[in-house]
Formats: sequence, C-alpha cells, structure tokens
Amino acid sequence: MAERVRGLAGVPATESEISDIDGANGILMYRGYPIEDLAKYSTFEETTLLLLDGKLPSAESLKYFSEQLYKNRYLQYHIIDLMKTLPGSAGPMAMLQTAVSSLAMFYPGSECLTGSNVCTDLDYTRTSTFKVLGRIATMVAAWTHIKEGYNPIEPRDDLNYAENFLYMLNGNDPEPFLAKVLDVCLILHAEHTINASTFSVMVNGSTLSTPYSVISGAIGCLSGPLHGGANSKVLTMLREIGHVNNVEKYIDEQLESKRVIWGMGHREYKTKDPRATILEGLIAQLREEKGGDIDPLFDIAKRVEEVCADRLGHKGVYPNVDFYSGLLYKEMGIPEDQFTTIFAIARSAGWMAHWREQLADNTIFRPTQYYKGEKQRSYVTMSER
Amino acid sequence: MAERVRGLAGVPATESEISDIDGANGILMYRGYPIEDLAKYSTFEETTLLLLDGKLPSAESLKYFSEQLYKNRYLQYHIIDLMKTLPGSAGPMAMLQTAVSSLAMFYPGSECLTGSNVCTDLDYTRTSTFKVLGRIATMVAAWTHIKEGYNPIEPRDDLNYAENFLYMLNGNDPEPFLAKVLDVCLILHAEHTINASTFSVMVNGSTLSTPYSVISGAIGCLSGPLHGGANSKVLTMLREIGHVNNVEKYIDEQLESKRVIWGMGHREYKTKDPRATILEGLIAQLREEKGGDIDPLFDIAKRVEEVCADRLGHKGVYPNVDFYSGLLYKEMGIPEDQFTTIFAIARSAGWMAHWREQLADNTIFRPTQYYKGEKQRSYVTMSER
Repeated sequence: MAERVRGLAGVPATESEISDIDGANGILMYRGYPIEDLAKYSTFEETTLLLLDGKLPSAESLKYFSEQLYKNRYLQYHIIDLMKTLPGSAGPMAMLQTAVSSLAMFYPGSECLTGSNVCTDLDYTRTSTFKVLGRIATMVAAWTHIKEGYNPIEPRDDLNYAENFLYMLNGNDPEPFLAKVLDVCLILHAEHTINASTFSVMVNGSTLSTPYSVISGAIGCLSGPLHGGANSKVLTMLREIGHVNNVEKYIDEQLESKRVIWGMGHREYKTKDPRATILEGLIAQLREEKGGDIDPLFDIAKRVEEVCADRLGHKGVYPNVDFYSGLLYKEMGIPEDQFTTIFAIARSAGWMAHWREQLADNTIFRPTQYYKGEKQRSYVTMSER
Repeated sequence: MAERVRGLAGVPATESEISDIDGANGILMYRGYPIEDLAKYSTFEETTLLLLDGKLPSAESLKYFSEQLYKNRYLQYHIIDLMKTLPGSAGPMAMLQTAVSSLAMFYPGSECLTGSNVCTDLDYTRTSTFKVLGRIATMVAAWTHIKEGYNPIEPRDDLNYAENFLYMLNGNDPEPFLAKVLDVCLILHAEHTINASTFSVMVNGSTLSTPYSVISGAIGCLSGPLHGGANSKVLTMLREIGHVNNVEKYIDEQLESKRVIWGMGHREYKTKDPRATILEGLIAQLREEKGGDIDPLFDIAKRVEEVCADRLGHKGVYPNVDFYSGLLYKEMGIPEDQFTTIFAIARSAGWMAHWREQLADNTIFRPTQYYKGEKQRSYVTMSER
C-alpha cells in the first residue's frame, strides 16, 4: 500500500472533461473554451449548459433550457414556510444547505437512481439542473427578506438569471450594467476543477443519492471557513486600511508579521488569476459608467494590488478571483454575509456537471486507511477501571 | 502522476485509530476492543464515548456524558414546525438530512472552527456530539408521527438511549429485551472504518464546516441506494420467498440468473460478518423469550443462511449485518422505511469520532484529476453554430 497523502493532494480521483487549469500560464478553460471568451460572449445560462453537455448549445436548446430554468424559480409556499421557521440570525449557508436538502422531498422523482439501474440519461440530469439551479437563487434572495421578518419578493419571468436575482433582492428593475457584471461573476465562479466541495459532489453522488442531497452536501462543504468566504474578508481588510495612503505601510506590516493578505495568491496559479483580470476590466468599465464616482475602496484595492505586485510578484503571488468580486457584489447591493451563497449559486452549475460525469461512469468511493490505533485488548468492566 | 484508481479503492486517505477490520478472520474492533465484547458488556452511550475519546470512560465521565445526551433529546418547537412543513410522503433520510442541517442555525456556537485557529478541544467535539446524537433519534421517532399529521411523543429523561427511542415510537414502556437488542444493534452499526459516508465526513470536515453540516452531508451520502438500505431489501426478499420450503428453489434460481441475494456477502469479510453472528445469538434469545412464537420470516432467514452456506460458503459469501438487523427492527415495531435512519443514528457516533480525528490533524481535501477533455478551442457565436 502506498504512503498516505495528506488531503489526497495531487492524487488523481477522477478522469474529467469539464474544466482545466494551466496555472503556469494563467489559463482556465471550461470544456476547452478560455474563460475570457466565455466572460465576453456567453451568459451564465449558456455556460451552465456548456458545462453540463460539453458543447455550446443550439439556439433552440438554450431557449428551452432557459425557459425551464426560469419556470423553476418559484418556491412552493411550504418551502417559504420552512425558511420562516429558521432563526433570523441563521447563517445564509446553513439556511441554503437546509433549504436545498428539503427539495428532495418537494420534488422527489429520483426513481431513476436505483441500485443496478443508474440512469445517466441526459434528460434526467438536465431536469435536475433546472430544479436545483432555478430555485437556489430564489432561496438566497428570499432569505434576505425572510430573515428580517418580511415576505420574499416573487421572481419575474421576463428577466434573465442574473437580472432576476438582483430584482429579487430589492424589487427594483436591475441596472443593466450591474446585471451584466453579476452574470460575468457567475460565469467566472461556475467551475474550477476538483476542490473540496466538487470532490464531495463526486463522493456523495457515487452512492446514487439525489441531486438535492448532493448539492446540499456540497454547500455544507463550501461553508467551511477554509473553503469559501475570502471575498468578504477582502472587504474587511480594505476597510481596515481605510485610505490609499495607508496601503504601503499596512502591506509591509502584514508581510513582516507573516499575516494573510486576503485575496492574494492561489495554489493553482503562478500568475494573476485570469478571473481577477476579467473583474479588473469590469471595474474599469464601472468607473467609466459612474464618471469616476465610485467607492473609495476600489482605489485602495488598486493600490493594494500595485504594492503586492512590487513586494510579492516575484513569488508568483497575484490577486485571485476573490480580490475584486466582493467589491463588485457590494456595488450590486448584495449583503456581505451572502457572498458565499453567490459562490454556491454559481458553482452549482459546475457541481451538476461533475455529478453527471460521476453518474456516467460510477464507482462508489471507498478509500482505505492506515490503522494506527490500539492492538486487540480486553474489555475492562467499570468496577475494574 | 500515478494512475487514477476508480473510487480510490485501496488508496489510503487517512491514518486512523478508531476501528479496524480483519476480514480474513472476521474480526471487527473499535479502539482495539472486539465487537463481541462491546455487544456483550457495553452500551451505545459508552461505545460512543469510547469511539470519540479512544478509551473506556470512567463512571463519572459516562454519567456526565449520558446526562448531557439525554438533556439534548428535546427539539425546539421551531424544529418541529420545520418538520411539519415537509410533505408526509417525504423519505425519512431526506427529512433527516434537512432537519440535522437546520441544527446549525438553532445551535450556532461553532466559533471555535475558524481559519487559522482550529479548536480541537475535546470539550467542543464532545459537546457537539451531545447536540447531534441527542436530537437525531428524536427527529427520526418524531417523523413517524409528524408524517401522519400527529404531534410527536415527547422524549423521557429516565430512559437510556435505546429505550427512549422505542418509547418515542409508540408511547409504550419499551420491552426490556427488545431495548437491549436495539442497544446492541446501535453498537454494531456505530463504526466500520472508511466507507463513502465516513469519507464524506472527512472531506466536509476538512473545510472546518460545522458538525451539523458534516453529519447532514454524511446522511445524504448514506441515503444513496448503493450505500444504506439493504436490510429492508432482505425483508422484501424473505416475504417474496414466503415459506421455508421455497428457500432452496429461490436461492438456486437467483444464483442461476446471477441476481443479488440481499444480506449475503461483504467486501471486507471472507467469513461470516462478526456482527451477523452476534445478531443471530440475539434471535435465538428472542425465540426463547417468546417460547418459539416468533415471525415465520426468522425461520425462512435461517434456512436462507443454511442454503447459502452450502452453495456459496466456499466463496467466502456469508450473511452480513444487514441480513438479520431488519428482522429485528421489524420485531421492535420500527417502520421499514426508517431502517436506514436507524443506521444513521448509530453511525453518527463513528462519524463524530472521524470528524474529531480529522480536525485534530487537518488538511483540506483537494485531490486532482486527469483532464481528458477538449483542447483549447475558439468560441463560436450563436449565428455560426
């Protein structure tokens, strides 16, 4: 038996055709398409289908998928009732794990996942994708109202995925530019090879549990502080810095005391994260849209990036996707405690693609252990302990 | 990079001190203690502490743990309200995954799991164990009433874990012998090295998500038809056989047409599963208790075992733990659709032990993939597809 590898780092757990990272050159591709092209030309709806099916959809196929996705925005009132039983103080990720798990009961129909007869029918996996992805954004937006004691804002049929989400947050017609930015953010977060939560999708999916069960588990995995949540920490850091003039001093102090600079560096990339570059472009556009009148935190962030490039660039430490995404979400009026749920919404597209891939060539996950415990010993009764 | 191993079979994912299986000799040990001794001398409460702490508890420690466990039997009425929003037709495993996930919101207090400061304090993991294990049995019993439209039966303080569970099912004082059998069944199912659901505990726990999130995810993983649920299929099979005289013909036909004989064979054991031997002893006792007046399915099962020993014994295929456990659960009045939730209750003890072990020496799980997909290609606009 080979040595144990901590966290299975570098151990191949699957063959996959979904996405690929070239960290040395800063390239991320979904199904062979560079992320820059998808951010520029695609939509979250189309990217979801691409991830699932492996090819860009026909106009007809995209239209059908989008219609179904939009129809599945509505939550049964029992699900709203369920959310109303939760404490208003509840963390949105725990709420989302619970609410997504409940969908298995409201939308059973997983007969097709039975022991000897795994259905890898694309229709089934696509239908499950509508059902999960349609409702998950509604749950997140609804929670911002329910936690305050108000009824949620009903979804609208005439808006695309990103637009409708922003609409459900505050009931206003979404600003087209911000909706486009959110759409791009969803595309950028939709998939990123095998990380802990995507791996949990493969493990849970391998027992043929329902898609709701699988996605709920992945949300739980993503909720851990070692996984999601860095983008809200970037905001906290930028606020702590407070002014462009303080940046240099702050960064040098952090580096000297070996503290984390949030949003900097990524284990996969030795260059700037290609997603951060795309977000930076959007911020430049935002600045233009607003005639320069944007949150001073953007300037602080820009300066942090410059100072870090100077101090850390030679080590391959550059901004990652979290560095700018939180700033943009804030601009859209998304509450900071909901940033990780946006990640979960976007990543559900990739999770469903990996779930489908797992089913198509399934073996239950059952690694082994090195037993390092006690050798056989005799039970000692209480009176003799 | 090494070859991918399907399902990571035989790949060591951890070092563990919790349990060990010697499949050639039919030995299962928890923390070095043979399962036969634990079934004979221990209780589920004590076994849970043993799994968690690595040693048999002192009288004082066991008393404190049991008291806390019993205090944590009570569900907040908001949790009952949540369960009432679920469709009565809901599968009990989906209910349980959802209800356990909700505990993260009703009992937050996971501050101790933060990025750089993992608390591996035994107190924290023990407190989390009370909270999960105390409530999970109440949820399962409560659901048998709530799904029918009735309020659940309140737990009682004066009964042990197994007794109280049987009490909550029907409100009658539990039969001492059946309560003891359930206690043994819980011990036998509490732990079994690394399978898919226990592995999911390690993966989800590695991101430092909450214990509720981790156990909820594991319940989802266990709910897949490839993982839990074989014991109710044994019952269906025994009913299908219908009479002792039909056994030989049935088994031979199944073998000829290469169909599964439920409850027979286990990938880890080349002998009879030691847990099945223990259950068989309990059935003999039950027969004596009842003066021979027991369900004819027991006789059919006995005959299935004899015929299978004759036909399959040379291949190392013998009864596993599922072969007799369903029959015993039925005798206790546990509804068949709840058998897998009993497994989940028992296994929560082992899951919490593995969660603790993961935290004590944590690295986030992030295996890798072989990318077999498309090479880089250019985006094609809709009009050109």
